[in-house]
Amino acid sequence: MKVILLNHTPHCIESAFVAARTCYSGDFPEDIWKQVIPTSGENDRISDEKIYTLLDKIIASGHHSVLEHISFTFAIEGISRACSHQLVRHRIASFSQQSQRYVTLEPDSFVIPDTIKSDNQAKKLYDTFLNNSLKTYRELMELGIPKEDARFVLPNAAKTNIVMTMNFRELYNVCQIRLCTRAQWEIRELFWRVKMELSNIHSLKGLAGYLQPKCEVLGYCPEHRSCGKFPTREEMSK
Amino acid sequence: MKVILLNHTPHCIESAFVAARTCYSGDFPEDIWKQVIPTSGENDRISDEKIYTLLDKIIASGHHSVLEHISFTFAIEGISRACSHQLVRHRIASFSQQSQRYVTLEPDSFVIPDTIKSDNQAKKLYDTFLNNSLKTYRELMELGIPKEDARFVLPNAAKTNIVMTMNFRELYNVCQIRLCTRAQWEIRELFWRVKMELSNIHSLKGLAGYLQPKCEVLGYCPEHRSCGKFPTREEMSK
Amino acid sequence: MKVILLNHTPHCIESAFVAARTCYSGDFPEDIWKQVIPTSGENDRISDEKIYTLLDKIIASGHHSVLEHISFTFAIEGISRACSHQLVRHRIASFSQQSQRYVTLEPDSFVIPDTIKSDNQAKKLYDTFLNNSLKTYRELMELGIPKEDARFVLPNAAKTNIVMTMNFRELYNVCQIRLCTRAQWEIRELFWRVKMELSNIHSLKGLAGYLQPKCEVLGYCPEHRSCGKFPTREEMSK
Amino acid sequence: MKVILLNHTPHCIESAFVAARTCYSGDFPEDIWKQVIPTSGENDRISDEKIYTLLDKIIASGHHSVLEHISFTFAIEGISRACSHQLVRHRIASFSQQSQRYVTLEPDSFVIPDTIKSDNQAKKLYDTFLNNSLKTYRELMELGIPKEDARFVLPNAAKTNIVMTMNFRELYNVCQIRLCTRAQWEIRELFWRVKMELSNIHSLKGLAGYLQPKCEVLGYCPEHRSCGKFPTREEMSK
Repeated sequence: MKVILLNHTPHCIESAFVAARTCYSGDFPEDIWKQVIPTSGENDRISDEKIYTLLDKIIASGHHSVLEHISFTFAIEGISRACSHQLVRHRIASFSQQSQRYVTLEPDSFVIPDTIKSDNQAKKLYDTFLNNSLKTYRELMELGIPKEDARFVLPNAAKTNIVMTMNFRELYNVCQIRLCTRAQWEIRELFWRVKMELSNIHSLKGLAGYLQPKCEVLGYCPEHRSCGKFPTREEMSK
Repeated sequence: MKVILLNHTPHCIESAFVAARTCYSGDFPEDIWKQVIPTSGENDRISDEKIYTLLDKIIASGHHSVLEHISFTFAIEGISRACSHQLVRHRIASFSQQSQRYVTLEPDSFVIPDTIKSDNQAKKLYDTFLNNSLKTYRELMELGIPKEDARFVLPNAAKTNIVMTMNFRELYNVCQIRLCTRAQWEIRELFWRVKMELSNIHSLKGLAGYLQPKCEVLGYCPEHRSCGKFPTREEMSK
Repeated sequence: MKVILLNHTPHCIESAFVAARTCYSGDFPEDIWKQVIPTSGENDRISDEKIYTLLDKIIASGHHSVLEHISFTFAIEGISRACSHQLVRHRIASFSQQSQRYVTLEPDSFVIPDTIKSDNQAKKLYDTFLNNSLKTYRELMELGIPKEDARFVLPNAAKTNIVMTMNFRELYNVCQIRLCTRAQWEIRELFWRVKMELSNIHSLKGLAGYLQPKCEVLGYCPEHRSCGKFPTREEMSK
Repeated sequence: MKVILLNHTPHCIESAFVAARTCYSGDFPEDIWKQVIPTSGENDRISDEKIYTLLDKIIASGHHSVLEHISFTFAIEGISRACSHQLVRHRIASFSQQSQRYVTLEPDSFVIPDTIKSDNQAKKLYDTFLNNSLKTYRELMELGIPKEDARFVLPNAAKTNIVMTMNFRELYNVCQIRLCTRAQWEIRELFWRVKMELSNIHSLKGLAGYLQPKCEVLGYCPEHRSCGKFPTREEMSK
């Protein structure tokens, strides 16, 4: 799997700051913008520290709508169709996915779960099956079956590519679910990589810090059983 | 594939009528409601004919928001995961889908495309493959591979069940795309069955009539090439 | 202000139950439906108690998507345009609102806040202003100014009517915000009335019980300062 | 009214192009990205002409989802609360609006419709009313009425500021409605200014060209009566 941050809103934290200040200020948003993105000289710019103080309050109090002015576009490459089927269930995001109706699957385009990779016998069964799947796929097409029907033999393991755009409010919400140890390993890795992509860019490091599993946000585990990181709410009240 | 209308907003056309009239009237919505759903005696009820005259205007002029007050819940059973992956891309709808992480796939739970069913040689290849897929799936689980990883060998053909709730505005939009002959055959059949479920209920027959492919709505085919039903816009202007 | 539940999904809790069970069961949704809505005889029906046990778990664990299959339509009458402007900011809902471009405002169509009603001097100022507003509105129209421009003199106090449809997942989320004592008094009353409408119907009483301000859900107040009902998170950790 | 494009997705047309190509290509989105945003040397870059040829096809055929990867953030200053109430009805957008609960209205913060400005008698009535409104507003606050209740006397004419982020797919849809001559004059001006902001930036001029009232897109007027620009569908078929 590869996750690459292709594109993002310029001036991320400044955008959220201007939006938040517009709500509680008589100043024009254009003028607040100039306070954080000065056109010349940096002397009077409102500091990153002050901006993050406001963002901390916004995140803590749950007034998250200003985070929607920040968007990120990722190239997501080589995830399984099992993972992509889960991913596109997030409805407050934009997805452009490689189509199996139009694109022919290439050899070696399969994801192998670690549990299978680390078990010789399972790995052998799995490889044989994948070869068989690809072979049947091709034979069906050679018989004149259209690609959109031949793909019925392609397994969940088949790799796919997606371009995903998500705003930061939704990314914050999704990470609470998908960074949880109960999430499926592949989608958890995907959002861990999403977080790493943000962490690797100096100006986005602070935002990356807000991306946490829900237990870190709530202070307890809301699931039926905890992974051990935090007690459940029931366990807490004991 | 089975599509069953499980549940729907009571008084569908009346709901849209009351919403539309509320916008342009000084009357309270509660009082408009009583004009279409009288609590006693039916004598003074606004007629279905008048309600449909208003709905016709609403549909034609594109002021579709009042159609959102009408919702339908369908049981969708035995579609392929290829089809369900497409289906859940519609974001203005609610889906609850059978999970392959928790539910074990049973034998004979595969969709067979017509192009394969009608070709002996292809059918044989396909059946052999499906048996092999199910066998590998089980062997992996017997080796201790968790179900969520064993399912990587399950093909797109694997059947799934979904409960789907969609409002009528979105249903109207989705049918324009999915009833088009260019849509994948399985999702086209799905929305054709959705339309049939509405047609089969006397009070919903009129609404079903509005569900049409986009060419019927536009008067021309907006695709690059037409299926022949309507000329493309380019062909029209010749 | 009046809030009237006009219409709602039949079999509310059963719908959420069927959706939830579909995710984790090999059974067809149609068959699960028959277990909670038997076509004849009530003997074998899954009990309300069992259904609510599942709903409690769903609400507690945050897996709320199955609540989207339940929708409610309300007539909201006589709220101020100040309140309606806030209300329509909730984007996961459907609104049909009386238009000031097309409907002429009638006399006595103004909301009076309690703080003003209970202060004689303020009340007198307010009444004089409202008379003046209505008088200017009419004089402008008599001069030939179109209604859509004459309404520029109508105050926030002017009453409006709205038909609102919201699913139960969103209603649950919105009530967390709008039942908080920090919400504006008018929109708080609105959602308190929404909750009362559900409480008054036997089969919806249980759902009404889930509608709570966020502090009740979280166990602490996430706002900067608490109203006193719950300590803030900071105060808790002391 | 002022509308200022504060911020936008970098590489707009390239983003839509990469998203569209990802759907129909075996190439990784990261590699397609490099074809339109080369890291060094511009020689081999896919030309703007080719990108626009693809965008033209996408727009014409209605496959608009790839346009969602492009977002624009505008500062909207000095529109009336009548206009802002309409504006925030668009649900696929993000709004941060100046709050009348927290910000005190200043003198001269009122919109004056042209029909009133150009009529001496109306103008006089209007000015007198606005002075009276502002005076009552202040007197109420002096009596100790909280700002959130004193604002009930503020008229629709009162100015407000909003930061709005909208993706290009939604902007395309909204402009079809709001650039129509039947839209209220103020919101029409707003989206005309939105279009102008895009037109004024060289790299966005092409996108601005797609923003048109619905009659230009459909080739006919879908409203009951046409403004004369295009015939209605009924008139066409005569």
